[in-house]
Amino acid sequence: MARVLAGESLDSPPLWLMRQAGRYLPEYREIRQSVGSFLELCFTPKLACEVTLQPLRRFDFDAAILFSDILVVPLALGRQVDFVEGEGPRLDPIDHEGIDALPHRLMTGKLDPVYETVSLVREKLDLSKSLIGFCGAPWTVATYMVAGRSTSDQAPARLFALREPQRFRVLIDRLVSVSIEYLIGQLQAGADLVQIFDSWAGILGESEFTSWCIEPTRAVVAGVRRAVPDARIIGFPKGAGFLIERYVQETGVDAVGVDWTEPLDQVRRRVGGKVAMQGNLDPLTLVAGGEALDKAIDDILASMRGSRFIFNLGHGIVPQTPIAHVERLVSQVRQAKQ
Amino acid sequence: MARVLAGESLDSPPLWLMRQAGRYLPEYREIRQSVGSFLELCFTPKLACEVTLQPLRRFDFDAAILFSDILVVPLALGRQVDFVEGEGPRLDPIDHEGIDALPHRLMTGKLDPVYETVSLVREKLDLSKSLIGFCGAPWTVATYMVAGRSTSDQAPARLFALREPQRFRVLIDRLVSVSIEYLIGQLQAGADLVQIFDSWAGILGESEFTSWCIEPTRAVVAGVRRAVPDARIIGFPKGAGFLIERYVQETGVDAVGVDWTEPLDQVRRRVGGKVAMQGNLDPLTLVAGGEALDKAIDDILASMRGSRFIFNLGHGIVPQTPIAHVERLVSQVRQAKQ
Repeated sequence: MARVLAGESLDSPPLWLMRQAGRYLPEYREIRQSVGSFLELCFTPKLACEVTLQPLRRFDFDAAILFSDILVVPLALGRQVDFVEGEGPRLDPIDHEGIDALPHRLMTGKLDPVYETVSLVREKLDLSKSLIGFCGAPWTVATYMVAGRSTSDQAPARLFALREPQRFRVLIDRLVSVSIEYLIGQLQAGADLVQIFDSWAGILGESEFTSWCIEPTRAVVAGVRRAVPDARIIGFPKGAGFLIERYVQETGVDAVGVDWTEPLDQVRRRVGGKVAMQGNLDPLTLVAGGEALDKAIDDILASMRGSRFIFNLGHGIVPQTPIAHVERLVSQVRQAKQ
Repeated sequence: MARVLAGESLDSPPLWLMRQAGRYLPEYREIRQSVGSFLELCFTPKLACEVTLQPLRRFDFDAAILFSDILVVPLALGRQVDFVEGEGPRLDPIDHEGIDALPHRLMTGKLDPVYETVSLVREKLDLSKSLIGFCGAPWTVATYMVAGRSTSDQAPARLFALREPQRFRVLIDRLVSVSIEYLIGQLQAGADLVQIFDSWAGILGESEFTSWCIEPTRAVVAGVRRAVPDARIIGFPKGAGFLIERYVQETGVDAVGVDWTEPLDQVRRRVGGKVAMQGNLDPLTLVAGGEALDKAIDDILASMRGSRFIFNLGHGIVPQTPIAHVERLVSQVRQAKQ
């Protein structure tokens, strides 16, 4: 994967899956049941390391991705964050005073267990495999902090940003600073590269996309590179559509994630020469399997041949994915070798 | 509006708002409270006509849109459809036998109250104003029929289509046939043009977008034009992103709706010469008002100057929208006249 990020294109693209450490794996569910909460699992380095490595034991992936959650950042800013089984995250929605009271740095020591997990994984992981660290993009993290949970269109944060852009910028600026600090921490602990997940980028109009997705991401990328000049960074502005071109030109990422709704050949035409691309199998196609899966994999490989490409899903793997379909995916991608 | 659809560009673009007859209006809420259910309101021509005309009395819009719902079509196919206050639609999820049992035509007389509403509105509406009829696109209607309700990503229909494309095609084909019949009925009853709402187009990958959005829409457009050769048709493939270009080239619509996340100038560059465009103010910007609203309106007008354009929102108006903000929008768009 490092070679693709550094500029090479490979006949058989490197392969990993977003959320590859997770509920579709019985060995994950077993460990998850042994701890009291999702966050306890994230903050117990030995277990988080084990869960991070599980998919690499089963599948011939090229990278491990740290097992954690984007919402550990608000937690390390002193905010209340819980994960309600089957319902998703619950945060104490942030108000004006909450924003004014946000610290400029992560609470000391709060994310040390994450860095420890990164170091543990890097020790145990074969050197031929990359370890990916990550954070949520400031905009996406802010949507959860404002709404207190996931909504269908993250309207609370969008309205907040439209009504009080100055105040919202304070929140975004804090998230930029601590995201830089957090990614540097992961890189220094042993992550080979990092990914910035902007899962809610696609809900923004162009002007807001510029202010809340592109500008903060550019600031995070620049900030990380000031401390780690050769840091490799993948950005994933999910749902960016036409705006993926500006995202690539203006943020400085080395690679861009493409979601499953975006036509790979058109995106390649616009940004393929500038950065590596990563994606974009529909996670539900991996659930469905059969002919639909075979054809979709072939189409992706054909679209990206001769280009800097990392094979992945277009969004996280879903819990009902059959293991056999992941095995089939891996073998089909490996056969792309000529 | 007819002039723009026929090929002209106007200095001051015609203006209407998706869902302009609705809960943000106190006079609508009053009528809604006087009837037992949302569907009763849709199927009572006198009341549905009144509600359709309400926004035209308050605001200088150029068009009225029939007050109804896209799910009256499954209802007229004999399916169970209810609207649960505050929760949205509830349908009896369709299975294999349900699909096999679908009639090839709408149940006789079932949608007569809708056609009657159209005739009533057309009688009462000033001749300078257009009356817009509509239906849901086959894909979007199918997503509700399969899931039985709205979900965050309409995964049930996507999985069904991936696993059993032949069977899913039967469902889509039935919806194509009856959508044609339904739109022809509205045009013959007095609608000046029709819009096809594909609210869930944006969740599809390219191959599925071709099969389930473009092909059925093209079939609906062609079928309507066989009976009404000069029918004017707006298509709204919400969230199509890059695929809006193929949608325009391949479906035969006269105008295309653009949602608020799509950069208007880029879309214009790709499709502006071929069809009229309609959109795309963020409905939440209309809620927020103030500087954000003024700037967004100006940006849209500037992007579309000299082009065939209908001013609209990028999605339906939301209930919390202040009336004063709609008034401001109308006056600002009208001032675009030079």
